[in-house]
Amino acid sequence: MDFVRKVAAYCRDSGLLHRDECIVIACSGGSDSLALLDVFSRLRQEWRLRLVVCYVHHGIRAAADREAAVVERAAMERECAFYCHRVRVPQLAAATRESIETAGRKVRYRLLRQTAAAVGAAAIAVAHHRDDQAETVLHHFLRGSGTAGLCGMRARNRDIIRPFLGVTRREIEAYVAARKLPVQIDETNFQRFYLRNRLRLDLLPLLRQYNPAVTEDLNRLAAVMQGEDDFLCAYAAALGRKYVRPGSGGWTLSVDALMAQPVAMRRRLIRIGVSKMTATPITFQQVETILALAAKATGKEFRMKGVRVVCSYRELCFLPPVARRKTTVSSDASVVAVNGPGSYRLGKRQVVLAGAVTPPVRDNVLLRCGTVTAWQLRYRRPGDYICLQNGSTKKLKKFFIDQKIPASRRDQIPLLCNGQEIIWICGYAVNSRYFPAAGEDYIRGWIQEETV
Amino acid sequence: MDFVRKVAAYCRDSGLLHRDECIVIACSGGSDSLALLDVFSRLRQEWRLRLVVCYVHHGIRAAADREAAVVERAAMERECAFYCHRVRVPQLAAATRESIETAGRKVRYRLLRQTAAAVGAAAIAVAHHRDDQAETVLHHFLRGSGTAGLCGMRARNRDIIRPFLGVTRREIEAYVAARKLPVQIDETNFQRFYLRNRLRLDLLPLLRQYNPAVTEDLNRLAAVMQGEDDFLCAYAAALGRKYVRPGSGGWTLSVDALMAQPVAMRRRLIRIGVSKMTATPITFQQVETILALAAKATGKEFRMKGVRVVCSYRELCFLPPVARRKTTVSSDASVVAVNGPGSYRLGKRQVVLAGAVTPPVRDNVLLRCGTVTAWQLRYRRPGDYICLQNGSTKKLKKFFIDQKIPASRRDQIPLLCNGQEIIWICGYAVNSRYFPAAGEDYIRGWIQEETV
Repeated sequence: MDFVRKVAAYCRDSGLLHRDECIVIACSGGSDSLALLDVFSRLRQEWRLRLVVCYVHHGIRAAADREAAVVERAAMERECAFYCHRVRVPQLAAATRESIETAGRKVRYRLLRQTAAAVGAAAIAVAHHRDDQAETVLHHFLRGSGTAGLCGMRARNRDIIRPFLGVTRREIEAYVAARKLPVQIDETNFQRFYLRNRLRLDLLPLLRQYNPAVTEDLNRLAAVMQGEDDFLCAYAAALGRKYVRPGSGGWTLSVDALMAQPVAMRRRLIRIGVSKMTATPITFQQVETILALAAKATGKEFRMKGVRVVCSYRELCFLPPVARRKTTVSSDASVVAVNGPGSYRLGKRQVVLAGAVTPPVRDNVLLRCGTVTAWQLRYRRPGDYICLQNGSTKKLKKFFIDQKIPASRRDQIPLLCNGQEIIWICGYAVNSRYFPAAGEDYIRGWIQEETV
Repeated sequence: MDFVRKVAAYCRDSGLLHRDECIVIACSGGSDSLALLDVFSRLRQEWRLRLVVCYVHHGIRAAADREAAVVERAAMERECAFYCHRVRVPQLAAATRESIETAGRKVRYRLLRQTAAAVGAAAIAVAHHRDDQAETVLHHFLRGSGTAGLCGMRARNRDIIRPFLGVTRREIEAYVAARKLPVQIDETNFQRFYLRNRLRLDLLPLLRQYNPAVTEDLNRLAAVMQGEDDFLCAYAAALGRKYVRPGSGGWTLSVDALMAQPVAMRRRLIRIGVSKMTATPITFQQVETILALAAKATGKEFRMKGVRVVCSYRELCFLPPVARRKTTVSSDASVVAVNGPGSYRLGKRQVVLAGAVTPPVRDNVLLRCGTVTAWQLRYRRPGDYICLQNGSTKKLKKFFIDQKIPASRRDQIPLLCNGQEIIWICGYAVNSRYFPAAGEDYIRGWIQEETV
């Protein structure tokens, strides 16, 4: 079937488009979103659409200026309105202590929604396709996410629509080639420091050796899970309206009503109770802890960010957190997992890791990241050593002595490690095995004192 | 916690064991099942258990005689009754046209159940542990299985109990080493021709680089899915009792009642209807086809093995299959996926692939299988060629001409292929790149004419 007709049929069957609507198209200049813009411009007359193209400049990559110009020209050629928003994601990420990816995604969707509101758009179209869906499902699977995670992305999620969830990357690329669209390559898509890129570049091709149809099969899994999740959510919401009630200065849930439910609904009722007090996601282990509290009715309480759960008089109460005593936290045992560029906090210091395309920062170091699997930030431990320039190793204690760092400060210096191996004594020295050679992937690292 | 106490706690919390029961222990002589026997013998007094040890000799590996003797001695030392069953799995597999793995598993469970019935056992204990569970979940995930597949193995499935689902391979191995149990190594566990072995030896260690806690996370996923699947099954079963009713020479389901349900329940109602007529598993695509039939109410019918589904008068009818006309099936486009040792049928021929430990068979060939990923059986296609001994390649057509094979027969000769590459022109010649070198993994292949 013709690509445009296939996308149109998917939009119709999934109820993504309606006549006379205004649609904001999120366009990065990559092949997927340029194809989306092109297809929509060809469906415009038939659906009587008004199209607004929106580019968000993250203030990270130099190439973004060129991309914005290409998207603008593509929009102009198709007589679409064009909006370009400039933000500074690294600074935002540092301020909110989120990874650059997370901060970028949040600000991008916020700006897209602002644009949609300003132009009176019914929806925002993004270019995720079936290969993206397989990646998303795989990503959630690897973390052991349950039904909700395995649903992957929805064709419609409130005001976000995904007209390409019915087509594959290969189909899009064939279309782009046939239409000779001016595709811009985002080089960060090939940096293996990002988990998402490793999933796409390494893991999915490998899984295809185990199951050649893995992309289709994971899309089918997402479809099945979406159906089941819809049903389970609707059922649980009805139970929630019945049993989760305001009271005791928060919300209450009868333990007897809870325990009378099958375990799948018990877990969901706990989630509903917690969601009444806080938007903080709750982990499976936390749900199980609260269920154990209810089963034993011990009167003990459970605390997480934004909510305190207390069991009393056969009721679970979801209450506001109480003001916490100031405690001196001994941070020596802290370990922070490092899974990509971002700002990581250990004690009072922030260690910032930024993709190679970030402009240099004062006192930054370059770290080879081609083979990163699981990095972490921690403080020193007995037996630590570091590889220095001439290939020799030095005990960390000896290093500190040589550097004349007082013993009282040694426990406060973050160490970026790959397993047992120290990569970077943050602020002091880089393991010579992690000096990037020419042409190798690298990241920039620097350290910030807490400004508060 | 002490390993024995941990297993005992898991058995108690999961309701696997009760006092004064007789338990059949399936024991292969490997570390897992020897540990299971040892732990149960130490729990025997406390739970007042009667233990019966059962070994099934598959008639495949020479080492099985030694294993049986070791298991017998282990049983005797612990004063347990011992049963050894001898079967010939390769012959069974050939007769039932199943893979050797499938045929072996079926006959093993049948014999374990026979033994349990004979000795009056309440349950059969098998030694699957948390790493096996992660493998099972991963296996189903790679095939895109939905909720039921992602549940993995249950702690109890009717008469089968899995007391080790709360412990890991590492914990078992530490226990085995500490108790100096006489573990027997099954060398087929290291043959990469078996998908299950590749998942364990290659894929799971790789995924651990993406998520060091992947085993635990997949076990948690299984636990969540078991809860959700129990709920969904119970709900669907209640709907099934209400709406799937005997009638019209089979079973009927009101289209209006069906379409009034959310899609998750529609799919499950279709499965219930089909299961009334046949034990053949139904695929997701088949479910969707039947749903489309119901949605359109076209009067067309859908057929699969054991059931015919007809939509008439706003009812879906699940009916017995009608006797089929004899048709001449053109098999030229058939492709059969080959995913491990077993018997594979293409047209009127069966191609048998057997592990290296199978005794030689007349006219067998040896095929290198170390790097197998996705093999398939098919007939010739334009452009096919084969690599011959001296490193040269020959067009398949030329090969057939040289061998004086009449054109009429050339379309009937199965080709075992790895992607585009021909491995074996079955019955005629092996690609020289697939001759196994000394010490490389290999399989035996031979061809059987249909005996019917």
